[in-house]
Amino acid sequence: MPLRFAPPTAEAYRYPLTIRHLLANVLLTAASREIVYRDKVRLTYADLVGRVGRQASFLAGLGVEAGATVAVMDWDSHRYLEAYFAVPMMGAVLLTVNIRLPAAQVAYTLAHAGAEVLLVHRDFFPLVEAILPSLPDVKAVVAILDGEESPLPAWATGEYEALSAAADPGFPFADFDENAIATSFYTSGTTGDPKAVCFSHRQLVLHTLAASGPFGASPVAPLFGYGDVYMPLTPMFHVHAWGAPYVATMLGLKQVYPGRYEPEMICRLRQEHRVSYSHCVPTILQMVLDAAARTGADLSGWKMVIGGSALTRALCVEGRRRGMVVVAGYGMSETAPMIAMARPAPDGEEQEERAVEALTAAGVPVPLVHARIVDADMRDLPHDGVARGELVLRAPWLTPCYVGNDQASADLWHGGWMHTQDIATIDADGRIRIRDRLKDVIKTGGEWIDSIHLEELVATARGVAQASVVAVPDEKWGERPLAVIVPDAGASPDLADLNAPIEQAIATGVITRFARLDRFRIVDDLPKTSVGKIDKKRLRALFA
Amino acid sequence: MPLRFAPPTAEAYRYPLTIRHLLANVLLTAASREIVYRDKVRLTYADLVGRVGRQASFLAGLGVEAGATVAVMDWDSHRYLEAYFAVPMMGAVLLTVNIRLPAAQVAYTLAHAGAEVLLVHRDFFPLVEAILPSLPDVKAVVAILDGEESPLPAWATGEYEALSAAADPGFPFADFDENAIATSFYTSGTTGDPKAVCFSHRQLVLHTLAASGPFGASPVAPLFGYGDVYMPLTPMFHVHAWGAPYVATMLGLKQVYPGRYEPEMICRLRQEHRVSYSHCVPTILQMVLDAAARTGADLSGWKMVIGGSALTRALCVEGRRRGMVVVAGYGMSETAPMIAMARPAPDGEEQEERAVEALTAAGVPVPLVHARIVDADMRDLPHDGVARGELVLRAPWLTPCYVGNDQASADLWHGGWMHTQDIATIDADGRIRIRDRLKDVIKTGGEWIDSIHLEELVATARGVAQASVVAVPDEKWGERPLAVIVPDAGASPDLADLNAPIEQAIATGVITRFARLDRFRIVDDLPKTSVGKIDKKRLRALFA
Repeated sequence: MPLRFAPPTAEAYRYPLTIRHLLANVLLTAASREIVYRDKVRLTYADLVGRVGRQASFLAGLGVEAGATVAVMDWDSHRYLEAYFAVPMMGAVLLTVNIRLPAAQVAYTLAHAGAEVLLVHRDFFPLVEAILPSLPDVKAVVAILDGEESPLPAWATGEYEALSAAADPGFPFADFDENAIATSFYTSGTTGDPKAVCFSHRQLVLHTLAASGPFGASPVAPLFGYGDVYMPLTPMFHVHAWGAPYVATMLGLKQVYPGRYEPEMICRLRQEHRVSYSHCVPTILQMVLDAAARTGADLSGWKMVIGGSALTRALCVEGRRRGMVVVAGYGMSETAPMIAMARPAPDGEEQEERAVEALTAAGVPVPLVHARIVDADMRDLPHDGVARGELVLRAPWLTPCYVGNDQASADLWHGGWMHTQDIATIDADGRIRIRDRLKDVIKTGGEWIDSIHLEELVATARGVAQASVVAVPDEKWGERPLAVIVPDAGASPDLADLNAPIEQAIATGVITRFARLDRFRIVDDLPKTSVGKIDKKRLRALFA
Repeated sequence: MPLRFAPPTAEAYRYPLTIRHLLANVLLTAASREIVYRDKVRLTYADLVGRVGRQASFLAGLGVEAGATVAVMDWDSHRYLEAYFAVPMMGAVLLTVNIRLPAAQVAYTLAHAGAEVLLVHRDFFPLVEAILPSLPDVKAVVAILDGEESPLPAWATGEYEALSAAADPGFPFADFDENAIATSFYTSGTTGDPKAVCFSHRQLVLHTLAASGPFGASPVAPLFGYGDVYMPLTPMFHVHAWGAPYVATMLGLKQVYPGRYEPEMICRLRQEHRVSYSHCVPTILQMVLDAAARTGADLSGWKMVIGGSALTRALCVEGRRRGMVVVAGYGMSETAPMIAMARPAPDGEEQEERAVEALTAAGVPVPLVHARIVDADMRDLPHDGVARGELVLRAPWLTPCYVGNDQASADLWHGGWMHTQDIATIDADGRIRIRDRLKDVIKTGGEWIDSIHLEELVATARGVAQASVVAVPDEKWGERPLAVIVPDAGASPDLADLNAPIEQAIATGVITRFARLDRFRIVDDLPKTSVGKIDKKRLRALFA
């Protein structure tokens, strides 16, 4: 027998999952609520909806049609938020540009994506001027002067605010196929050219819905809900600022956009607008904590989701000591990004140790996410908190491919599951802990050593300020761990110092004896990638 | 230019929004959490998943294929929850039978739906025995003895637990078109035969996601989240128990199913399992409050969403006095049902009056819901809390039709919006208040009088226990309001008594002078519909 379908009556509305519908009731429920940009601009949601229409109208005037790509190079701003809606709502593709990449890579991504119109903040004028000659697809560049009185560059077609003011707020947004691409951006790949992920309208609407639930569903510390004031601290070019601007807008929350990340401005905005919810990588949290220590700013009650790299216990504890709610989340560019959120231990408040343990895990999968840890043959590994395997995923919002890169796409989805290349454990409560990157695992003497675990141990050694551990080739053992150390001021730790915490871990059986260090290097600074992670590829290149 | 699409790589998983995926990670995160049925059964989520497979296996053995209809006649139970998943996951259609309807109407709905297999609790054996001869499509009846040792009726094909125990837990559930019908049920229409609504897998998954967000998103009283213990108090045959079993299961919450609603059992289960979240119609809340008053049961901290009919201030206040969190929601059979949820006033806890005002509104639209109030020509009315119009809706989870009823389907979706036939106001904060049913509005002297407002006024009159107001034809005025009164014991209120609160309302301008009563009737009891609402149709028939 065939499946049964209900033919909709002729006039029944067929509701496509398009981004336009995230705005379904913001005018009804939040028309006068505010959206703030630094100390410069205060808008209402009514203004936002009008400005989304204006942006679409002036982009259409510049020749943007459905299917065209519009690239944004801006700091976190209300303008960026407008583009999050206006561009996809026109049926065009929003390209969020990683402005931290080297100029040649920015040029590569813009050319590869076939971007036709650029919206560019004045801080990136020199960059754009340098690469524009190599971008034949670009039809127009909209300059963002950001309130400064300065002349337009010769190559600019117009200024954002002037174009917006002259445009019609009533752009006739229509429904269309929910599977059309809404957004795209390039991952800062550690090998080869950057690769483009992309997400359809349907995927982003589902991501937004799914993310709105678990954010709010914790009884211990509901993270994100009506009454919160939202400020992103993950750049908006990076995986839709983790999807939070879409959630915040759908819920009609007050929002604050900080522009370029400057610690004092961030602390000031936090204070003035009582920002209660943000998200960032550990480095930014550290920066905020340092700035607050300098300025005496009050951080209590500020909820902060940490992703990008592991939330260390030390950072979690320091945040909690300042009255913050610090919680790990997990995702990546390929996953839109929400996959898991740390779920506080129910009795966490009383038991600091258990609370920190729970909050620093990568988290528990959010609804609709299928998560497995598997060995190299895709066999499932036990959920005992110990067995380590690659985390593979299914969810409605994973990139279906790397655009125009068939081999990488096939590898990503090999066996029908999306390969994260993260080595993880899962415990009996479903808590995922990322232990290492597949490529950073050190294979020595027939054992796999988790480089991150080793780094955490070395970091506790006497005289060590920062530590990274990478694999270096070794004739006898295949690979051996090499510790790269930034020492404390005036200290010069030796091999015995570095091995002290490792010996202890070997003695208690939590790490293999093959982890004992036999080599290390002292450096002034650890190299970082454009998103602030330690650049292990570069370390390997330097020392292998 | 055409829209841009990203062709998924060959092995990329195409994720359909089918109900199977609501279980995506319950085994990972909640395998040992409990699901309780009265004082009889305690299962884990691991058991649930196995029993869902078993139900599908034995139904397949009884000849159920994709597209077939399986009808359930049971009290709220773990078996019902199993059917919520197993039947749609097979590609079959779950028909939830309103067992409060008269036998002839139950027979009509089963025949109209073409139900092939029935799952029937022993309490409904006499009903089924009576109507079975008129149901030629029925191939098998599964008897639910509910733990009692008694012989199977001759017409039963088998017993639920015996069939389950003998069946394979590993049913090979597969992916299929998300637009296939998952569930169907009949509305207890006030005119003509019951009409069937239906919902696709896609619609129910979206409903579940959308409902999980706003339930948890309130900062004042997060309603429903990790750590909660859920117990339905709206029958599972009625609009998927408002969708809450799907949300609770997706989140992996502890669940308690109370079987037939018996006040003492409900209070006992609430106490033993620390039930923290339920939902019901006002009548059931009143019953719970009465039972607790008798037994001294502690109700504090119990969160209760009220729908079906208006949450009165008095009931809200009484619940709050007992330490409950009582919150109105809004929806109907045609809407799956979640449309709006009351959002507590941010400062509600300090200002009891404002809190109750906010909590008793039908609520604020949940994400993706477009809501309008319109006049008879579909023109929008102002959101000033005063202008009254019909509430019309768009959302991804509205029934696309009444199955097999073209005229009613066309009327439901006239003009591309779903007509609720509820007369509502919307205020500046997006709060919807249902003022009346379109058909219950009293049109007199060129004015529209809100019959519910009038009822609320009359209910406060001296000597009145309960009151309803319906329109009766009048030669001069078109229609006139007729008050139907259940007096307090020993009281016999007269027209002056009834008009006293109305006169006051006329004097302050909140109701038209045409509302002044000129007729009333005294009765022993007000007639109710099968879902416990006052049956105005019957009142009009009696007194018009």
